[in-house]
Amino acid sequence: MRKPRLMTPGPAMVPEEVLLELARPVIHHRSEEAKQVLVEVAEGLKRVFQTKNDVLILTSSGTGAMEAAVVNVVPPGGKAIVLNAGHFAARWVAICKAHGIEAVSLDTEWGQAVDPAQVAEALKQHPDAVAVFGTLSETSTGTGHPVKEIGEIVAKTDAVFVVDGISGVGAMECRQDDWKIDVLLAGSQKALMVPPGLAFVSVGPKAWAKINAFDSPSFYFNLKAAGAKAKEFDTPYTPAHTLILALRAALRQINAEGIENVWKRHERMSDACTAGLRALGIEPFSARPAEGLTAFVVPAGVKDSQIRGKVLERFGVTLAGGQGKIKGKIVRLGHMGYADELDVVATLAALEAALSELGVAVEPGKGVAAAQRVLLAKN
Amino acid sequence: MRKPRLMTPGPAMVPEEVLLELARPVIHHRSEEAKQVLVEVAEGLKRVFQTKNDVLILTSSGTGAMEAAVVNVVPPGGKAIVLNAGHFAARWVAICKAHGIEAVSLDTEWGQAVDPAQVAEALKQHPDAVAVFGTLSETSTGTGHPVKEIGEIVAKTDAVFVVDGISGVGAMECRQDDWKIDVLLAGSQKALMVPPGLAFVSVGPKAWAKINAFDSPSFYFNLKAAGAKAKEFDTPYTPAHTLILALRAALRQINAEGIENVWKRHERMSDACTAGLRALGIEPFSARPAEGLTAFVVPAGVKDSQIRGKVLERFGVTLAGGQGKIKGKIVRLGHMGYADELDVVATLAALEAALSELGVAVEPGKGVAAAQRVLLAKN
Repeated sequence: MRKPRLMTPGPAMVPEEVLLELARPVIHHRSEEAKQVLVEVAEGLKRVFQTKNDVLILTSSGTGAMEAAVVNVVPPGGKAIVLNAGHFAARWVAICKAHGIEAVSLDTEWGQAVDPAQVAEALKQHPDAVAVFGTLSETSTGTGHPVKEIGEIVAKTDAVFVVDGISGVGAMECRQDDWKIDVLLAGSQKALMVPPGLAFVSVGPKAWAKINAFDSPSFYFNLKAAGAKAKEFDTPYTPAHTLILALRAALRQINAEGIENVWKRHERMSDACTAGLRALGIEPFSARPAEGLTAFVVPAGVKDSQIRGKVLERFGVTLAGGQGKIKGKIVRLGHMGYADELDVVATLAALEAALSELGVAVEPGKGVAAAQRVLLAKN
Repeated sequence: MRKPRLMTPGPAMVPEEVLLELARPVIHHRSEEAKQVLVEVAEGLKRVFQTKNDVLILTSSGTGAMEAAVVNVVPPGGKAIVLNAGHFAARWVAICKAHGIEAVSLDTEWGQAVDPAQVAEALKQHPDAVAVFGTLSETSTGTGHPVKEIGEIVAKTDAVFVVDGISGVGAMECRQDDWKIDVLLAGSQKALMVPPGLAFVSVGPKAWAKINAFDSPSFYFNLKAAGAKAKEFDTPYTPAHTLILALRAALRQINAEGIENVWKRHERMSDACTAGLRALGIEPFSARPAEGLTAFVVPAGVKDSQIRGKVLERFGVTLAGGQGKIKGKIVRLGHMGYADELDVVATLAALEAALSELGVAVEPGKGVAAAQRVLLAKN
């Protein structure tokens, strides 16, 4: 037996009860029953995002939501500042480029958190920037960025702060309204515990003013159209409504646990994972690990593919490799959404066994024990 | 008991075996297992589309695929001819407008089939048109259009023929390569028997030449990126891969029946439905009914909402109303995908009961009998 454990930073594991919703007979997406699902989901998403905004539901992957934010907020020929600190942050630059938007790339070394002072400086240098595009949790490096502090800085300017929270929302503390995030994005397949196919865009008043000021060259991702429909608990086009039904079930679970407790669980998993790796002599890649995943540097003498291959083959544990310029240099261990502390302990145990078998000098049990100590102290 | 029968032109019913795939534990979308699903799905889609092209898979509703076709095929400022014969065909015009593309709207009365001779004339008048945007099955009017004949005409010009087959592919005979359709679109939630969330774009060589000639202002829907990834049985961004797994199961069923038999089944359902309605004195709305749905004119003395309400309340049968300018004037009865002849007979029986109760002079049994006669003759 190889019991599957999908410990990747998205798609992440989905609760059995949520999966079973997907096996239900398909209803019509414009029925009263479907509308009531959207009514409940709207409330649940607001709690998760900590916002009074309508949270718009797009049928797309998270990248679709990123493009929606770019093309609706920044007019063609406009300028934006990108907090570029990883593979996914770099996507903001690529999307801007595709649409003839000038992206001022504020580069931060991968694995480091963005420095809010540099954002303030960039905004001074570029007072004509319409938006600042940032990231809550950079999935490629496992880094959490100080979006609260950056939000305070951007709020003092005319620019809007757009945050990719695709792998962060629901895993890391993030309070959209209090933290002055004008547009916050999320994806279904990460901490929200649903399979991929849905993306979310929560738009605040300052951002709506930008959006309403011009006709965006977009149709499917037109946020004005989506915003108008959301007021009636509807969507402009046929949504992936069976995934929305699943989302309702997932949001019920999140609500039952309480979003603050969900954040704390992720913090515990993150701290335990980092402590466990350190006890094995393995270095976390990020200076500020994100709560939903832990990236670690591949130990000398082995390849990332050997580690991932071994834990998968021997134990059914799936881990992710690096992306872009750090491909082969790190391994990413996801602990978001439907993952608990015991999943982290189990994964560390698998990792210890795999590393031992690969000839890396680790002391089996040491990582697990360190993780357990964190969990006991933090309970 | 009200046994649900979703007789709408999308979302349509999904086979139980396909639904059960969606309840399986989520695997990683970049795993070998996920790739093998894409390999099999690629073959299955080619059979359904009757093409040698790679059929690109987008995570979006059908409208996303329409926008992808527009922005990738026609450069900004370019010109296109739209065969505008319904609510969804009109969407081609709206998408062109959103992107600064000139849409020459060739208007056909709703419910009538597009006249190929008019397309030939329009192409003569607009030799600079980059594309002709048409529809296989216009879902809003229940009309099948002569795309084979139009394909022959467009093929003689430099323009490419782009066909919205969202509700048509898998229901109506359509042979992309033989019929010279340069770009053919489909959606998951119609005749392909999967819940909504996936759209398909099959691009032929003449269209690739147009697409490769400029940098499209698109990122998520960039077909060059999707085309390159499809060669490796991959997608540029995280796809709704649990829906793709479901699609594999649906395509296996379609393949087991054989696509030609699937088309014939839809033709039988369409003919039986039309005959049944006519026997009750009810007029089909379309001069050329599409194989996947039958639209009929609301009889005098009742409202469409009364008919739909009655069949739903009494029998659990869901029908759809009209859209756009014919809202309230027609009812649409879907028989696509996971629908068989007995579903049509059952729905006609429900309709007879509902109309009788609403005081419309119909003779119960007469519609059903007429439908049965068609089915017996066509078996």
